[in-house]
Order: sequence, then C-alpha cells, then structure tokens
Amino acid sequence: MEHFMRAALDQARQGLAEGGIPIGSVLVHRGVILGRGRNRRVQLGSAVLHGGIDALDNSGRHEASIYRESVLYTTLSPCAMCSGAILLFGIPKVVVGENQTYMGEEALLRSRGVEVEVLQSSECIDMLQAFIAASPALWHEDIGE
Amino acid sequence: MEHFMRAALDQARQGLAEGGIPIGSVLVHRGVILGRGRNRRVQLGSAVLHGGIDALDNSGRHEASIYRESVLYTTLSPCAMCSGAILLFGIPKVVVGENQTYMGEEALLRSRGVEVEVLQSSECIDMLQAFIAASPALWHEDIGE
Repeated sequence: MEHFMRAALDQARQGLAEGGIPIGSVLVHRGVILGRGRNRRVQLGSAVLHGGIDALDNSGRHEASIYRESVLYTTLSPCAMCSGAILLFGIPKVVVGENQTYMGEEALLRSRGVEVEVLQSSECIDMLQAFIAASPALWHEDIGE
Repeated sequence: MEHFMRAALDQARQGLAEGGIPIGSVLVHRGVILGRGRNRRVQLGSAVLHGGIDALDNSGRHEASIYRESVLYTTLSPCAMCSGAILLFGIPKVVVGENQTYMGEEALLRSRGVEVEVLQSSECIDMLQAFIAASPALWHEDIGE
C-alpha cells in the first residue's frame, strides 16, 4: 500500500484503539504530510471531526496556494461535509481507500474537476466493515442516517 | 430581526470582539438552540471552524432524526464545507443572513431539497464587509481564494 494511504490507515487504527470509528486521513503537500486526522466522534464527542475534517484542522492555517498543490488521502470515500471542505479549499486530488462500504460525494467532486482515485483496499474495507457490524448505531449516527 | 438570526449575529459580533472573522451560526431544533458557533480561524488557528461547523460541533452528538427537524441560521451564505455538513446531516432548512458578500452553495443545497431562505440583512452585510475591507488577506484565506 502506498505510503500516504498507510499513514491514513494508521490514523484509522489509532481511532479504533481509542474506541472510535476507524476512518483516517492525511493531507499531503508536495510529498510532505501537513496534517493527520481521524474520526473523533467518540473520542471528543464531536459530530464534525470526520477523518478529513480532522486532518485539515490538524494541518493548521494555510493560504489557498498550498491547498491547490495538495492531495487528501482518506481511508473512506469522503462524505458531503469532507467533500465540501475539499471543494472550499480547492484541493485538486483525493485518494480514497475504499468506497464499497460507503459511497461519498465522489460524483460531485469529479463534476467540479477534482481527481478522485479509488484504491478499493481490502484492509480499509475489512477494518470498517468489522466495526460497523459491531457498532451499527454509531456508524449510522456518523453518516446522518 | 428574527430571534435566531439575532443569536447568530451575536456570535458573529463575539467573534469580531475576539479578533476573528465575524460570521456566526446557530442550530435550532423545534425552537430550541442546540448549539451556537462562530468562525474561529483566528481564535483557534482552525481552518475548519467556520460558523456553521462550529455550531454543529458545539451542539454535540445527535441522531439523524434530530437534524431532520432542525434549522441552521447563519449570518453568511454557507460555503461548500458548511453546505456539505447540512447535506450530510439532512438538515432540511437554512436561514441565511446575507449572500451579497459571498454566495455559497445555495444552488447545490436547493438541488438536494434543502429550503434556503435569504434575509439579506444590512446588519450582516455591513459587519462582514467592514471586516473584509480591513483584513482582506484573512478573508481570502478563509474562503480558500
């Protein structure tokens, strides 16, 4: 698995070890990780700290030019909120661990010119699907369903 | 001005007093404010705590059924990230203080069935435009431009 998706998966595993929903992301600028994040709904009681939002938050403040040379790696297809953040900041590319468990707003992203690459990683799929089987209510809360 | 937009505007003014970007929001469920928020890019060094995201965060964790009976009041037209959060959680209505200074993703929201009401409040417009005139770089950073 590619180095940066491995870093996102490490975040997801860390979230799992904390009792959280195992979804992780990293924001990468020209080959350097600016920020790492993971879903922290359980850990911080936060409805908005999805993996992508947390990675963007942890990467700090940047001018638009930085985002426009960055790639977001995320273990799961980005939901509407995380996709909206990608559009807001003009991040041109997203690498997605899998979209089999949950299909986010990939079509919207592509329609706005964002490159979306899907790895369909069995490691990402197996980890999240095992979690959902054990904690379905938490998962549904997280995706607003 | 309607009570809940007044509460959102109070948040924006509080942000301004803190040295922040004056945009505020409140999430209202059946006439009760669940959470108040304001842009806290400056205050917390956060790229993701726009008014709407902060209000959702401060409102805590809820099941989908709560969001589906809620209204988000926000002093400014919601950006792609905040609009994405509205879509993720299935919030059916947004009341917008103004969209003259910045037009967010109102068309996307409407295309997905969200009711968007725009008040075009001169109080909201004047406050934000005065801030932007004084701090244009900060504003552009916040909207990824």
